[in-house]
This record gives sequence, C-alpha cells and structure tokens, in this order.
Amino acid sequence: MLPDFLKCISRSISHSSFHRFHSSFRSTMPFNRVAIGRAEEATQPDALKAALAEFISTLIFVFAGEGSGMAFNKLTNNGATTPAGLVSASLAHGFALFVAVAIGANISGGHVNPAVTFGAFVGGNITLLRGILYWIAQLLGSTVACLLLKFATGGLTTSAFSLSTGVSVWNAVVFEIVMTFGLVYTVYATAVDPKKGNIGIIAPLAIGFIVGANILAGGAFDGASMNPAVSFGPALVSWSWENHWVYWVGPLIGAGLAGIVYELFFISHTHEQLPTGDY
Amino acid sequence: MLPDFLKCISRSISHSSFHRFHSSFRSTMPFNRVAIGRAEEATQPDALKAALAEFISTLIFVFAGEGSGMAFNKLTNNGATTPAGLVSASLAHGFALFVAVAIGANISGGHVNPAVTFGAFVGGNITLLRGILYWIAQLLGSTVACLLLKFATGGLTTSAFSLSTGVSVWNAVVFEIVMTFGLVYTVYATAVDPKKGNIGIIAPLAIGFIVGANILAGGAFDGASMNPAVSFGPALVSWSWENHWVYWVGPLIGAGLAGIVYELFFISHTHEQLPTGDY
Amino acid sequence: MLPDFLKCISRSISHSSFHRFHSSFRSTMPFNRVAIGRAEEATQPDALKAALAEFISTLIFVFAGEGSGMAFNKLTNNGATTPAGLVSASLAHGFALFVAVAIGANISGGHVNPAVTFGAFVGGNITLLRGILYWIAQLLGSTVACLLLKFATGGLTTSAFSLSTGVSVWNAVVFEIVMTFGLVYTVYATAVDPKKGNIGIIAPLAIGFIVGANILAGGAFDGASMNPAVSFGPALVSWSWENHWVYWVGPLIGAGLAGIVYELFFISHTHEQLPTGDY
Amino acid sequence: MLPDFLKCISRSISHSSFHRFHSSFRSTMPFNRVAIGRAEEATQPDALKAALAEFISTLIFVFAGEGSGMAFNKLTNNGATTPAGLVSASLAHGFALFVAVAIGANISGGHVNPAVTFGAFVGGNITLLRGILYWIAQLLGSTVACLLLKFATGGLTTSAFSLSTGVSVWNAVVFEIVMTFGLVYTVYATAVDPKKGNIGIIAPLAIGFIVGANILAGGAFDGASMNPAVSFGPALVSWSWENHWVYWVGPLIGAGLAGIVYELFFISHTHEQLPTGDY
Repeated sequence: MLPDFLKCISRSISHSSFHRFHSSFRSTMPFNRVAIGRAEEATQPDALKAALAEFISTLIFVFAGEGSGMAFNKLTNNGATTPAGLVSASLAHGFALFVAVAIGANISGGHVNPAVTFGAFVGGNITLLRGILYWIAQLLGSTVACLLLKFATGGLTTSAFSLSTGVSVWNAVVFEIVMTFGLVYTVYATAVDPKKGNIGIIAPLAIGFIVGANILAGGAFDGASMNPAVSFGPALVSWSWENHWVYWVGPLIGAGLAGIVYELFFISHTHEQLPTGDY
Repeated sequence: MLPDFLKCISRSISHSSFHRFHSSFRSTMPFNRVAIGRAEEATQPDALKAALAEFISTLIFVFAGEGSGMAFNKLTNNGATTPAGLVSASLAHGFALFVAVAIGANISGGHVNPAVTFGAFVGGNITLLRGILYWIAQLLGSTVACLLLKFATGGLTTSAFSLSTGVSVWNAVVFEIVMTFGLVYTVYATAVDPKKGNIGIIAPLAIGFIVGANILAGGAFDGASMNPAVSFGPALVSWSWENHWVYWVGPLIGAGLAGIVYELFFISHTHEQLPTGDY
Repeated sequence: MLPDFLKCISRSISHSSFHRFHSSFRSTMPFNRVAIGRAEEATQPDALKAALAEFISTLIFVFAGEGSGMAFNKLTNNGATTPAGLVSASLAHGFALFVAVAIGANISGGHVNPAVTFGAFVGGNITLLRGILYWIAQLLGSTVACLLLKFATGGLTTSAFSLSTGVSVWNAVVFEIVMTFGLVYTVYATAVDPKKGNIGIIAPLAIGFIVGANILAGGAFDGASMNPAVSFGPALVSWSWENHWVYWVGPLIGAGLAGIVYELFFISHTHEQLPTGDY
Repeated sequence: MLPDFLKCISRSISHSSFHRFHSSFRSTMPFNRVAIGRAEEATQPDALKAALAEFISTLIFVFAGEGSGMAFNKLTNNGATTPAGLVSASLAHGFALFVAVAIGANISGGHVNPAVTFGAFVGGNITLLRGILYWIAQLLGSTVACLLLKFATGGLTTSAFSLSTGVSVWNAVVFEIVMTFGLVYTVYATAVDPKKGNIGIIAPLAIGFIVGANILAGGAFDGASMNPAVSFGPALVSWSWENHWVYWVGPLIGAGLAGIVYELFFISHTHEQLPTGDY
C-alpha cells in the first residue's frame, strides 16, 4: 500500500526534471525506506546497503555514547556518577544519535535501535526479514564500536548497563518502558509527519533530544538505555550479563506500545475523519 | 491503516494541488489547530484526539524534566542545587519540551502547558471548552508522569517546586511572570510566522530553548516552572502545596500579558496595514 | 547595493502568487527589514514596532543571560567562576539569543545588539536614524531586564562585566574585537544567504551558537560580552562603570571590521560577477 | 560523477526564473562548490575567495575551541581534565564548528579541516591544487587564532594536543581514525543528500554535533582532534611537537576511509541502479 503512496510521489516527481533524485526522495522518512523493502522494488543489494548503513550508524553512535561513559570513568577513577557526568552522557548520546539518524535516514531509515525496528514491525512498517537483518547490523555495529573502544583506550572496561542501588529490576523495566515509549512515539510522530519539507531535520533532532533528555532522568537509576544494541555491545565485550534482559524487555515493550498507540489513535483516527472523495 | 492514510496522501500529491494538505497546513502552527477548534470543522473525536496528544506530550515532558530533578537528588543525596544541577535541569526540560511540542504540533498544537493554552485563549485563538479539555489533559499527563517516576525510582519523592532562601512569594511571582511572558511571546512570534516552510522546526526549538535558558536563571530562585502543569503533578503526588499558587498566578499573568501585547502590537498592526482584498 | 538586491527579490516575489506574504518574505532576513527601512516603504509605526520588538527581544535575552550569572553567584555564594559556571552562561546566552533573534527576525531583523546594528550600518544596510532607534530600544530592554532581575532576586547585585586577574584592558579589547567579528561575520554570512527556505533557522541558530561558543573561551577572561547592551544594563543598575568602555570599543570595532570584510570580499565580488540584466 | 550531477542541477535551475541565485544554489552543499572547482567555471578570484572563507571559518572555530581549553586551564590553574571540562570543550567545538561550516558553506563548502578536504580529494570531489590552497588557509587560520589567543589571554600557553597517561600513540591513532571516519562519513552523508531544502541546516548541525559527541569520548584520552589544523596551530604557537604526527596520520586515514567507503557503497551503488538516460 505504501507503494501506492510512493508510486504517486515518484510519478509527480518524474514529471519534474529531478529524475536523478527519484529514489532518494522516497526514502526521506525513516519508515518509507523500510516500507519499500516490502514491495517488489526492494532489491537484494538495497537491503544489504541499508544494513551496512545501520551498522555504520550504530557504530558511530555507540562509539561516542559508550566512549563518553568510559571517559568519565577514566577522569574520575571509576567514581560514582555525578550530575556533570549525566550531562556528558546526555550530550554524547543526544548529539551522536542525531547524527546517526541523520546520516542513515536516506539509506536505511536511520533506526540505529532494535526497539525502533521492532516498533516499526509492530506498526506494520517493516518486514520480518528486513527487521532481522537490521537487528544483526545494529548488534554488530555496537559490538565493533566496543571492541574499538577497548583497544583505543588501552584496554579499559566497556562498562555494561546496570541498576543503581535501590533500583529493582521491575523499577528498571518500567523506566525503560516509559522512556522507550517516548522515543518510539517520537519516531512515529516526526517520521510520518506529512510536511516532508522539514521532516529531515525535525525527526533526527527530536529523536536525539528525547534520548538526551531521558538520560538526564533515567541515567541515575538504570543507565537509561532505551536501545538493546546500546546495552548489548558493552555487555558482550565486557562479558557481564547481570540483568541484561531488562534492557531488552523494557525497550521492546515500550516500543511496541508506542507503535500500537500511534497507529490506533492518530493514524487511524485521521482516516475516519476523511471522506474518501477527491482531494 | 497506514496504507489508507498514505493512499490519500499519494492521491492528493498526484493532483499536485495539495488539497489533502489544505487542512494539515493549517494545523502546523500551534495556534492554528486550536483556532480551527472555534470553527464548525472541529469534531468531537478531533478534540479528544488533541487532548490525548496533550496528555502524552505532557507526560513525556514531565517524566524527563521532573525525573532529572529526582536524578540530581539521588546522585547528591538531596544536596543543594549546583550550577551543574541547573545545567542538567535546563537541558532535560529544553530538550524534552522541544520534543513534546514537535510531536504534538500537528495534532493538538503542542501546548503542553496550561499557561500557553491560557495565552491562546486570551488572544482569542482557542475556545473555552477546548481550553478546559487541554488543561485537564495536561494536568493528568503531569500527574501520571509523576506516579510513574515514583514507582520507577523505587519510591523517591517527586519534589515539588519551592522558593529558595531569601526569595519571597512576590519575587517568585515576578520571576514567573517575566519568564512565562518570554515563553508565550515566543510561542506567538514563532507560531504565527507566515513562513510555514520553517515553522515546524523554529517554533518547537525556540519554545524548548527559552525554557532551557530561563531555568539557568530562575531555577536557582524559584525552580523556574513557567508551567502550572509542571508544578501541579509533583505537588499532587508528593502532596506538598506550599506556595503552590505562585506557580499558577505568575505563569497565567505572564501568558496573558504576552497574548495581549503580541495581538495588540504585532498581529493587529499587521492587519491594519493590509488591504482587505482577496488573498 | 543591498537595496538593488532586495528590489530584485521583491520583484520576483510579486510576480508569484504569494501577494499575501509579500511583505513578510522580504523581512525574513535580519538585514532586509532594515534595508527596507531606507526605502520609502518604511512607515513611522513600522519603525516603532521594530523598536518595540528589539526592546522585548533584548529584555528576554538579557533576563536569561544576566540571570544565569546571578544564579551562579547565589548558588556558589559569589564564588569564583568554574567550568560548570561557564557552561551555564554559555547555554543561557546561546539558547536565549537564538530565541531573541528568532522572535524578532520578522519584525525588526532581530539585531538585539548595538554592535550588530552598527555592523549593519557600516555595511550600508540600515539608516542612521533607525539605527539610533534600535540602540535606544536595546539599551532600554537590557536595563529593564536588570531592574526586573534585581527585584525578582530579592535585591541581588546585577554583576557588571569585568576583567579577570591578569587580563589588561587591551587584552580584553582584542578578545571583544575577535569574538564580535565572528558574531557579526556570522550575521552577514547567514542573513544574506539567498536560500530563503532555510535562513529562518540557520541565522538565529548560528548567531546563538557563536555567542555560546565564544563565552566558553572569553568568559573566563573578560566575561565575553560581544554586545554593548548586554554590558550596559548590568553596569547601569549596579552602577559600576570600571572599564565599561572596553565593552563598547571592542564590539564596535569587531562589528565594523566584519561588515567591511564581508561587504568587500564576499558581497561586492558577487556583484561584479553578475550581469546587470533582467533577473 | 559529481560534476555530471551538478550539471543537471544547474540546468534545471537555469530553467527556473531564479537566474540571480544561479551560482548560489549550486554552492549550497560543501562538496558542490569544490566540485565546481574542477569545472572550467572556477575562476581565480573564486578560488581565492574560497580560501579566504576557509581561513576566516577556521580562525573563528579554533579561537572558540582552543580558547575554551585555555579558559579551563585558567579557571582550574592547569588542573586535570574533569567531566565538566569535557562538556565545555564539547560545546565550544560543536557550536563553533556548526557556525564555521554554516558561514563557509556557500563560499568554500565549509571544510574547516584538512582531513575533510583530504576526504573530498580521495572521493574525487576537489582538485589537488584547490585542496592545497584550502590546507594552507586552514593552517593559517588556526595559527592566527592561536596568536590572537596568546595575546588576548595575556600570554597564556596555547596548549597542544597530547596523550593522556596510559594512552599509547597507536591507541590515539585508532581513536583519531574512528572519530574522523565518523566525521567525514557524516560530511558525505549530509552534504550529498539531494534534499536541498534542508541540507543547509542538517549538514553543519550534524558535523558540529559529531565532533561535540566524539570529544566527550576521546577528549579524555587524546584530546579528540579529528582535524590537523586544530592541532597544528596550538603546536606551532606553543612550539610543542611531541606526537604531533598522530593528529595528522589518524585523521587523514579516517577521512580517506570514509571517502572510499561512502563513494564505493553508497554513491556508486546508486549510480549502478540508475539508467544513464537524460536527467
């Protein structure tokens, strides 16, 4: 169905002289590109190219994000988190995620996060196969980033996400659910906005900023992952799996909820109001 | 569902006269949507959908904002505010408000603040009924965010806004008036800008940044709320109402002033200069 | 020269169907509006409205910026500046200046700074009379902001800008020259960019960020004003004029240099390359 | 290939009525301008103007970036780096680089970095001659910025980049390779995005933010230069060349890799999918 949408965009575009940009325009919104994956237009090299883009985006994102945590540990001799440390983590993740989404947007949709890919799947915006390909690329990207960090820092530990004192796994699961709900709701709200002219900047900025903001809250309690890939790489490379499931269950539930809520209330409702006549 | 939605987009696009976006364009600016609320076009489900969007936006905003304050308290064992703590609060509120406005803009106008809704009412841009609906949604969103925070942090206090030593209620009222005047003036100036192509990014960014900037000033004196919903949720959940009225009176006066000043000097004047011919 | 430039823009616009936005489009770039001021189209109420916009923008900017310095003094009992304090000042000024420029852009051009107005005058982009009107509005806005801060903080000092130990007045003058050169060069480079579609966001963002960045450098040495209005209000309200001239001479020289360099090398050259034919 | 690409843009533009903006539109993307440099259209004054723009952009960028480090040293009496110090360096470089790229974009492409120029050269997007001209301008800009800082700070040391304890030169080389790969990949991904309407804001923002994010990671280990000009000026003015080669070898390898990877997988592949018909 999305194809119809795209077909007509492409049609109108093909009436202009911008043939060269044909395929690029269709992929400006994160979910469009993956939707294309469902149609016949998706070619094998296209899917692999998208996976490569996810791999590189996730690598760049995790290198800066996890790296900022390791920098804090080095500067404070593994001291306790401080407000300045939270600010550093917030900016590193927020800035780098903006970049990771922006540079991936036109190729893979810029998910950079298995929970976002899952949210897209729940909303029917990506095929199972392509989703699995994205997950593999994202987990690999995070792992390679952590291996590079381990070498570049002269062998420091790639600290895994963990719960602060007084925070139970259920507390943390709720934290991850609410924060990831906010993140994936933001992806939906900014990525399906019909005002395409601006989407290119609003979507990555909002996605980067909501993660940056949530880290300033949840970072002191459970590390504020909102992204299984972000937790997986450090856990694998430092081989510390305590409570690791929290960082999968929480984000996936939150992302699924966001996909369902947005599809149900905002995308469908719009339908009901619209006559099927000629626009 | 997405398919149908997209089908109609594609249809309108192929007509290339953008009829379908007719109504969408009108709702890209915060006040336009509510203005539409005054016309006959407003349907019941539309109003409820807008209220739901306000509820979710406010929940996401308050979860990050209030959460960052609770994180500071946890990291410092309820220590006194420091410059780094102010920076953290500023970024958490600034980033999250950008997101809350951006994701609500096309559905409810992205008020996320009873004072902004009041300012829109004073300027004649929202009906009383829809305004009340928005207030309820905003207060509920803040309250639910605080309840979630209370659970997710293992029962920590959702600290209410309060006056620092040496700050009288009248000092605080002036602080809130001036800061909220700046906020609502910004809403008016960026939301009624006729250059629609950019409005989508300038409005939420300016709204998030003015709150972020003001927190770095007023945060050390009265917490810098500028938003009765932001103060209400924490006060209700922690049941601490001391000087709570300050955070209603100040913001509402500031917002009302901004609405009057902008309508009087900038919007009306523009009207007078324009012939009444056909545009 | 700019007038010619503008004439051709307005001509092309009036050939389009956007008559309604005719005047608005011309005023989206800081310098356009004031340039229009030189033409016969400028009406008295228009100039006063622009001055009012400068007054409000400067008030909002200085309230947050100077307020953040007073907040630091309160939180640290007038302690010495720290890196966290610089970050706070940088964000407060950067965020608030973005907002001040964005909300003033369509009405007054969003100068918010006597040095920017002077730079525009040197480049021939604003009349002497309108420039003086802007200066009065900017100085008044800063003064009123400081009076409001003095009351709202319960009578705290609105600390004037001063030189750190080991910094001579000539050191400071050079600092202010270089930093203000960067600021006004940025205003020219982003405000006369012909890609109008984006100018609305790039100009205020670049202007806010260059001030935010420079404060992280110069803030530790001379306070990093780059703006005589920003220094004037606090000096007047706290009545401390030591070395105050530094904050006028430095910024005005830097702004003048930027205006000359940009007009000479980048704007004029473009003119020479262009035929004078029909656009 | 890029030239062909540009030829078609310019053709379509020249069919529109915006003759006046003809040349400007073609130069909105960093690489376009330099690509134009390969064509016959490049005139001598054009190349010199571009070099002047690189000089000024680099001067403004290094003045704020290196200045923020000197401010930290002054405020802490040359104390060890702290998380707040990293945040300050991150914001100073991120904000100032956004500005440096934004103000140079339409004139020189806004490289502001010999590694970016090298990455463009590797990808075949700039001639050797123009590349050398850019390098000279960038190194000069950084040197003049440091001389101005030395004078304005009353003679303080312009600290050169150096390795932290426990970080070997090979660790640092890997750090610089990975971080600069991320930077130049970002330049490619955002600068060749065909959605011109937004490119003006996404490219400088992503470029500034990736540097800001990487500093929060690598800053604690090797200073996180990613830019030989940024390291060269301070080294020359303070005459300290220990391990200086690291800051050339790492960034140049990273930039070269990014250029090759992007051209190979993303730009060439796109070409293969496109018919060679008339655009």
